[in-house]
Amino acid sequence: MGLYQRWRRLRLPGLQACGLHTALEAAVPAPPACLVERLGLFEALWAAQVKRLAGLAQKEPRTIRVALPGGRRVEAVAWNTTPYQLAQQISATLANTAVAAQVNGEPYDLERPLETDSDLRFLTFDSAEGKAVFWHSSAHVLGAAAEQLLGAVLCRGPSTECGFYHDFFLGKERTIRGSELPVLERICQKLAAAAQPFRRLEASRDQLRQLFKDNPFKLRLIEEKVTGPTATVYGCGMLVDLCRGPHLRHTGQIGGLKLLTEQELFFFHELSPGSCFFLPRGTRVHNALVSFIRAEYTRRGFSEVKTPILFSTKLWELSGHWEHYQEDMFALQSPGSDRPTSSQSDHSTSHPTDTLALKPMNCPAHCLMFAHRPRSWRELPLRLADFGALHRAEASGSLGGLTRLRCFQQDDAHIFCAPDQLEAEIRGCLGFLRSVYAVLGFSFRLALSTRPAGFLGEPCLWDQAEQVLQQALEGFGEPWDLHPGDGAFYGPKIDVHLHDALGRPHQCGTIQLDFQLPLRFDLQYKGRAGALERPVLIHRAVLGSVERMLGVLAESCGGRWPLWLSPFQVMVIPVGTEQEDYAREVQQSLQAAGLVGDLDADSRQTLSRRVRGAQLANYNFQFVVGQKEQSNRTVNVRTRDNRRLGERDLTEAVGRLLELQNTRVPNAEEIF
Amino acid sequence: MGLYQRWRRLRLPGLQACGLHTALEAAVPAPPACLVERLGLFEALWAAQVKRLAGLAQKEPRTIRVALPGGRRVEAVAWNTTPYQLAQQISATLANTAVAAQVNGEPYDLERPLETDSDLRFLTFDSAEGKAVFWHSSAHVLGAAAEQLLGAVLCRGPSTECGFYHDFFLGKERTIRGSELPVLERICQKLAAAAQPFRRLEASRDQLRQLFKDNPFKLRLIEEKVTGPTATVYGCGMLVDLCRGPHLRHTGQIGGLKLLTEQELFFFHELSPGSCFFLPRGTRVHNALVSFIRAEYTRRGFSEVKTPILFSTKLWELSGHWEHYQEDMFALQSPGSDRPTSSQSDHSTSHPTDTLALKPMNCPAHCLMFAHRPRSWRELPLRLADFGALHRAEASGSLGGLTRLRCFQQDDAHIFCAPDQLEAEIRGCLGFLRSVYAVLGFSFRLALSTRPAGFLGEPCLWDQAEQVLQQALEGFGEPWDLHPGDGAFYGPKIDVHLHDALGRPHQCGTIQLDFQLPLRFDLQYKGRAGALERPVLIHRAVLGSVERMLGVLAESCGGRWPLWLSPFQVMVIPVGTEQEDYAREVQQSLQAAGLVGDLDADSRQTLSRRVRGAQLANYNFQFVVGQKEQSNRTVNVRTRDNRRLGERDLTEAVGRLLELQNTRVPNAEEIF
Repeated sequence: MGLYQRWRRLRLPGLQACGLHTALEAAVPAPPACLVERLGLFEALWAAQVKRLAGLAQKEPRTIRVALPGGRRVEAVAWNTTPYQLAQQISATLANTAVAAQVNGEPYDLERPLETDSDLRFLTFDSAEGKAVFWHSSAHVLGAAAEQLLGAVLCRGPSTECGFYHDFFLGKERTIRGSELPVLERICQKLAAAAQPFRRLEASRDQLRQLFKDNPFKLRLIEEKVTGPTATVYGCGMLVDLCRGPHLRHTGQIGGLKLLTEQELFFFHELSPGSCFFLPRGTRVHNALVSFIRAEYTRRGFSEVKTPILFSTKLWELSGHWEHYQEDMFALQSPGSDRPTSSQSDHSTSHPTDTLALKPMNCPAHCLMFAHRPRSWRELPLRLADFGALHRAEASGSLGGLTRLRCFQQDDAHIFCAPDQLEAEIRGCLGFLRSVYAVLGFSFRLALSTRPAGFLGEPCLWDQAEQVLQQALEGFGEPWDLHPGDGAFYGPKIDVHLHDALGRPHQCGTIQLDFQLPLRFDLQYKGRAGALERPVLIHRAVLGSVERMLGVLAESCGGRWPLWLSPFQVMVIPVGTEQEDYAREVQQSLQAAGLVGDLDADSRQTLSRRVRGAQLANYNFQFVVGQKEQSNRTVNVRTRDNRRLGERDLTEAVGRLLELQNTRVPNAEEIF
Repeated sequence: MGLYQRWRRLRLPGLQACGLHTALEAAVPAPPACLVERLGLFEALWAAQVKRLAGLAQKEPRTIRVALPGGRRVEAVAWNTTPYQLAQQISATLANTAVAAQVNGEPYDLERPLETDSDLRFLTFDSAEGKAVFWHSSAHVLGAAAEQLLGAVLCRGPSTECGFYHDFFLGKERTIRGSELPVLERICQKLAAAAQPFRRLEASRDQLRQLFKDNPFKLRLIEEKVTGPTATVYGCGMLVDLCRGPHLRHTGQIGGLKLLTEQELFFFHELSPGSCFFLPRGTRVHNALVSFIRAEYTRRGFSEVKTPILFSTKLWELSGHWEHYQEDMFALQSPGSDRPTSSQSDHSTSHPTDTLALKPMNCPAHCLMFAHRPRSWRELPLRLADFGALHRAEASGSLGGLTRLRCFQQDDAHIFCAPDQLEAEIRGCLGFLRSVYAVLGFSFRLALSTRPAGFLGEPCLWDQAEQVLQQALEGFGEPWDLHPGDGAFYGPKIDVHLHDALGRPHQCGTIQLDFQLPLRFDLQYKGRAGALERPVLIHRAVLGSVERMLGVLAESCGGRWPLWLSPFQVMVIPVGTEQEDYAREVQQSLQAAGLVGDLDADSRQTLSRRVRGAQLANYNFQFVVGQKEQSNRTVNVRTRDNRRLGERDLTEAVGRLLELQNTRVPNAEEIF
């Protein structure tokens, strides 16, 4: 802990992408002596292992049985036959697309010989596990490049849901320069092109200590985390790393690799596992997403509310969460004493010590809000929206970046309506989804999930509700699928499968009917005829978790944010020091309008280098101001694609940016 | 519990104020038979008590010693001498301004005879306890009026920090009509003018059951909360209520009383004690306050961030909160297991089960953010602002409305700066305070609190910092006070005492220097000369708790919100049903612009009644649309003070409202 914490670590996020930015040519320095020594030791151990395994296979050749996917069974030779060989027997396509194997449920390298009777499956990039292998292997390539170019001491290089990052240490005061990123990328590309195999070595504790004697982070891992007599080490080209694997067969399978300029959006810290710290630029994106949804709420007749975070478990008993969801909730004892309330009040109720729990969902609080006074049919539909912080006690092992958090906000709303308003409301929810996803550049596909076995409630109510959902879907005019029996026990639902700009699938939005909560909370309203009636409840979300959506967008736009979401809108660049005051004025005009205006007045750098730097950092626009612009009170506008839009009046330029921001266009640089 | 929960209660907030709105003449119906019966029984018991006490005083006249405020000692007669009599002996002013007494530390009616040797103090309206007596007595007057006018069943009528409310039950489907409020106020005024004494009766359980046989709420209180053989009942005019007291001597001391139109801003619920539920209109005000501060942050170079809510107690140990503040924190065991992370990652650290606590303050999280990567002098001052939800484990007895909550948000920011930037930053903080309070209509006074005994840190550092604060205060040009020794142990501070529009004092904003946290978190930045230096930390807030400020504003504006904060901006009123479509269009124009536009198309009501209703409900503007306005696409504008501004173009009117909202003027109705 101590060591890990004291280090100033550098986290470099990476992402597979097609294009490569390479502004400078790569020049790899000669490797440091410690790497050469480590590699030499690895090669010696590797040769010994190859010999040992060959001996095992020859001395007692043993036939083992392998169950392949699809039920086929084949025979193989222990310590000799590899999953890759079996994949080739099945089909060349499979051998080419498989990234790793699963043997008896365990992840397994394709080139690692089988040892016993095996139940064998293949992982491709289509599965989450396959992606993780792919991305984690790419992290090794980045680690190798950083080790060789920068002399970095490697820490962790895990995959994330949509890419990977690599932590490494460059010295207490050293951090990476933006100009080094393209060089790193170039080296990564060379390493990938070299198709270096990933070689798996089983090493003893003493061998591990010897291999990593120059890396205090790995030494600590060996002492604290290696529990058995041996652990695995992988070699790949010049790189030797302590790692469980598995990996791709060789680096040639990686293809291109893109390093994202560090945008300083957010970070994680071990003192709050599973919660994200949003830095100023990340907060800007988060707030822009929330403002977007708020604007839609206003247009669509949703009412935002704020509800508490901490509730008595009596609430969760009432809602059913305590029975079904308790393990995923953070609970605590109320520290409140039984002291009576102030002496002036009458003999009032005091609150006994109570168990409290952090809310994992907003719905029960919204039910309390519906119930807090008598309701009339005139108030329906009542659409309550809440951005409240939700907590779910995810196991620490399952936490992953912004995808799976312990604390997050949703664009969560609950619609209380009369049964005859249901269809119109569902249509409204579908229209809401479509218009938000269009702005975000996502495509989507809908599925109707109907009653499962063991559903609760009246069959005739379900019939009617499923029919209403079906009608709404048909009227919506987009293709949809039927998933019979996939609904929740408390009501049917519409699942939303969306694809981001890179074509990656995500599940974010949802529309769910709920017949149970209105019953559990005894929700009622006075109907037109005067009798009390029970409302129907719709749970719906469009973004889902705001944090997760932010992560999806960060990766799908590859750091090139659309103007309205961008934390890098405009870089103001004075040509010379004489224009610095005017440049500051331009910056202030942008900030006063609520836009992000940064200033690069570093006169040690040439103008073109500063413009290029702002473009590489993905500032949507660069406002260059020289003598002429200062006299005319104008700015000279360029885009991050280096389109030169020429001289514009300052006030008009700011106004135009505001307009483009507020209309949330995806291509502000093109239509400025 | 069951009964209390099932009831649909009505909560009527009240506030002392000078003026009274009375649109209708009060007409009190004859009291129901049950009230007459209750009153008869009370009078009989009262007569018996008077006789008994007189007997006690006469039979064994006993002299007791009374210690008065200021150290004077007098003699008095047990069961005879009252605190009021002693107050008169001290001064006529005291007798007139005292609202209650404290006898041996216990709250005590002024007219209740002393029983034993007593340490006597007097409570006036200047103290929190005195205010509570005053407001709670007023709640009785409202209760009496509601009982007599509406046949209400009385529940609770406690004081709040700045007024009172009274819960009562009108029947399951009945709620109060806006038109009834002025009538209630009128009755309250009459009851106050009648100067009815508050009479304190000691009653047995059987007598209590008999007195309140028609009030199930009180019956339940008697069974559950009355633990001794007797409890107190107060009579006041027609009213008989179960209550601990104390009260004013008589209702004549109350003067005016103003009932706030129920604005549906927020409510509380026993399933989340100490946390507020903000209804749509309250959320609107809350969001408007946050937006206001956000706009100031942008102008003033503050960066908003978002940090987690739940942290390992290791953080709180590091910050010192665990040592000094633990009792006020909600702590819990992390339910996370020790499962290893995903198979592809290397032998990574897993998080052991840990104690977690909800953050009561943002500063430690901001220190982590400062420390998460190396910092340079070029980044300073770094001003991190956070609206994160804070939790403090206030004892349930000390909870009170929006003033003392367990969950709240602050406009909390922390400035990390170099020592030579301190004065400019303090000036900036003072300017920030002044401009926000000016918009809110508050006056304020500043005080410099210097090092206390037992301060931590270097005396020379303190000297320098106190001098800097003093210079900043002197340069600021407002009067300020010196409070030697009142600083925190970790640094000197500037206290801000503000007065709202009603002249009531509040403590909201703060500016505090902190030398300790930068040490505890080992915060450093690379100075100009290249060496590592330690930043100074400033904690500052302007609103303080957003929720508390909302409560202060709600009460100080008496429901008449300035346009920019108002959840009641415009009521659109069609003259006839033919204009309803156009009225809806007007409403949509308002809503699309982000303004609050409501519609009153209730054709059963006359136009003038609807206009008057909107004015009584404090809608800043009424947009009346008739045939002419529909043809011209205009609106006929009136204000809540019934000023008629005439016909205006719809688009222009909406634009003008937006402009007035965005400039946050206090008097939009006058300058529209």
